Amino acid sequence: MRVIGIDPGLRNLGWGVIDTDGVRMAHVANGVCKTKPGSLAERLLSLHIQLSEVFTQLRPEAAAVEQTFVNKDGAGTLKLGQARGIAMLVPAQAGLDVGEYAPNAVKKAVVGVGHADKVQVAHMVKMQLPGVDIAGPDAADALAIALCHAFHTRAGGTLAQALARAGA
Amino acid sequence: MRVIGIDPGLRNLGWGVIDTDGVRMAHVANGVCKTKPGSLAERLLSLHIQLSEVFTQLRPEAAAVEQTFVNKDGAGTLKLGQARGIAMLVPAQAGLDVGEYAPNAVKKAVVGVGHADKVQVAHMVKMQLPGVDIAGPDAADALAIALCHAFHTRAGGTLAQALARAGA
Repeated sequence: MRVIGIDPGLRNLGWGVIDTDGVRMAHVANGVCKTKPGSLAERLLSLHIQLSEVFTQLRPEAAAVEQTFVNKDGAGTLKLGQARGIAMLVPAQAGLDVGEYAPNAVKKAVVGVGHADKVQVAHMVKMQLPGVDIAGPDAADALAIALCHAFHTRAGGTLAQALARAGA
Repeated sequence: MRVIGIDPGLRNLGWGVIDTDGVRMAHVANGVCKTKPGSLAERLLSLHIQLSEVFTQLRPEAAAVEQTFVNKDGAGTLKLGQARGIAMLVPAQAGLDVGEYAPNAVKKAVVGVGHADKVQVAHMVKMQLPGVDIAGPDAADALAIALCHAFHTRAGGTLAQALARAGA
């Protein structure tokens, strides 16, 4: 199964794609969709075009998006929300369900603890995907989200298989 | 010129379309794109499909979106932000610039004061667009946004014409 993870942002939207057979994880590609300061509508359109192109090229079969950190900066939350709307729309347009994971759930899945810093996350992503060349911190986060989704899907699969074996 | 106003929301996204020749305003259509509770990605996809259909049918030449009210409820702001991302994307995909107006700027343009309530706004929209049948409060707000944008564009046009006459 091919999984894309997306770390939404208006300026830098990270994405990372991995292949998994349920046990092994293999890196496919990662990158960052960037937009320059300018009209909000144009920036959202640019994100939509760039991310749609990733989907057209790499054809992921599953998708997960990081749950945006909601803080007291309402204007910042709104800006992120708008970018996140695009990050959710593109996989939905490709007919995929979209998994959502809180940042600490992603860290816990990849590093083992929920309070890991960005350096640790990038380190564990490299351990899981040997030889990977990461396009930047947002792409590292996106690969971590893809790994997290692969782990969760695998766990779900294992449970389903166990129930099937038990005749449940 | 045909103008669409959009009042973004995840559950109810209001839209209203008017025609203006720079002086007179005529109602074309208005409505509400609705989504049911469910997966966020599916709801955003549904909004995108419904609003894109409005653009395909009515072919507006100018668009304006209400600036979302940013409050202390971070989760609510995020939700609105995601819907607003779609409301900005659809006109951008149609090649339109997107005007943005704060709620009190819309009220000031349509009612004359920035603190008008919804009933007053709906009343003034009906005064400006005689015989209009309004699909609901979100559609009334959307028509007010379209009127506001038409007034602002007209003001801009008048200034441009005045400068041209002055040889500036």
